[in-house]
Amino acid sequence: MEHGQQGCGCAKPQENISNIGSFSSCGQTQFVGAGEEPRTADAKIDFVYPPVVFPSNKILKTFGEEAIRNMVFHHHSMLKKSSIGDMFPADEKEFLEGTQKTADFFVEALGGGDIFSSKHGHPALRGRHFRFIIDEKGREIWLMMYKKTLRDIEFPKELLEEFWNWIEPLSIRMINRRTTAVPPQRFTFESIKSEFGL
Amino acid sequence: MEHGQQGCGCAKPQENISNIGSFSSCGQTQFVGAGEEPRTADAKIDFVYPPVVFPSNKILKTFGEEAIRNMVFHHHSMLKKSSIGDMFPADEKEFLEGTQKTADFFVEALGGGDIFSSKHGHPALRGRHFRFIIDEKGREIWLMMYKKTLRDIEFPKELLEEFWNWIEPLSIRMINRRTTAVPPQRFTFESIKSEFGL
Repeated sequence: MEHGQQGCGCAKPQENISNIGSFSSCGQTQFVGAGEEPRTADAKIDFVYPPVVFPSNKILKTFGEEAIRNMVFHHHSMLKKSSIGDMFPADEKEFLEGTQKTADFFVEALGGGDIFSSKHGHPALRGRHFRFIIDEKGREIWLMMYKKTLRDIEFPKELLEEFWNWIEPLSIRMINRRTTAVPPQRFTFESIKSEFGL
Repeated sequence: MEHGQQGCGCAKPQENISNIGSFSSCGQTQFVGAGEEPRTADAKIDFVYPPVVFPSNKILKTFGEEAIRNMVFHHHSMLKKSSIGDMFPADEKEFLEGTQKTADFFVEALGGGDIFSSKHGHPALRGRHFRFIIDEKGREIWLMMYKKTLRDIEFPKELLEEFWNWIEPLSIRMINRRTTAVPPQRFTFESIKSEFGL
């Protein structure tokens, strides 16, 4: 997942929400070397993780636990064949165990009881993903494969928005490898709903 | 540079300056699955890059350009043999060219004229480092090797604080791979000065 970007990597400096006249920020002014007195570049941040809207239990109640488990399996099966496939175990048994664990998380998060946390503790998803290198592109692949999954499995159209508005900002929180100064791209439901005939 | 951390990775949750009751934050409350209504986890940030105090031109004036160039060479030569050595070209000629480029940056930043930016444009150091995977540990190695360099080359003691207070926060801005929810460790001048007999 090396993209080999050089320079400030700031394709769209105007979208860089973190401020500053620091020399490592984008949209920056000319670099000025030391003068008679020290100068201070302000504190800055990389980007803001947007709020995450957790869905209601309507999805679980309507779509059902088995369909959710099948969805996770479908998604992981596609990811395994993708360019981020090496995040998944090659061994089929281990792959299925990992997928079941993820499915347990989804079922619990969607209101199905503490099936995940009783076994594995707090989800703490960002923490659990630190051992994998996840850059902006990896997150986009994950999300785009979910979009395809939701089409493939004919996820109930009336629940799509609620589900998407959860996983889209959630996926940003898994990014732990930055390759650009531009904040992660948003994929609003508005921008993808036509792909579902909405 | 894989550290294989699991769980929320929050060794010192109380030091986590970014807030929040989000399920991917540290020091978090119990995870609660979906209920009748959607719930919103607040926006959050990873950590704040501290201000960077650029030194005055006193260092260049006192220590001199040649000594600064030797310092950069000494530092890079040690890094090349370290666990982050693969960030440097194996080819000796390319290594020397890269080191000269870095030395040009230091000379310019310390007040020696636009020797770097006239050739390479704005330093934009974070951007230039995106092609390398730099995690918290990599940054610490870079910084600790600078500490050793400053001792080895007998950097003028009266200028140490000014130099250190520049490179220490600056090095944090190169981190582009997070392996923990804990903000990068600070290494204040106060905490290292005794190693220089101060």
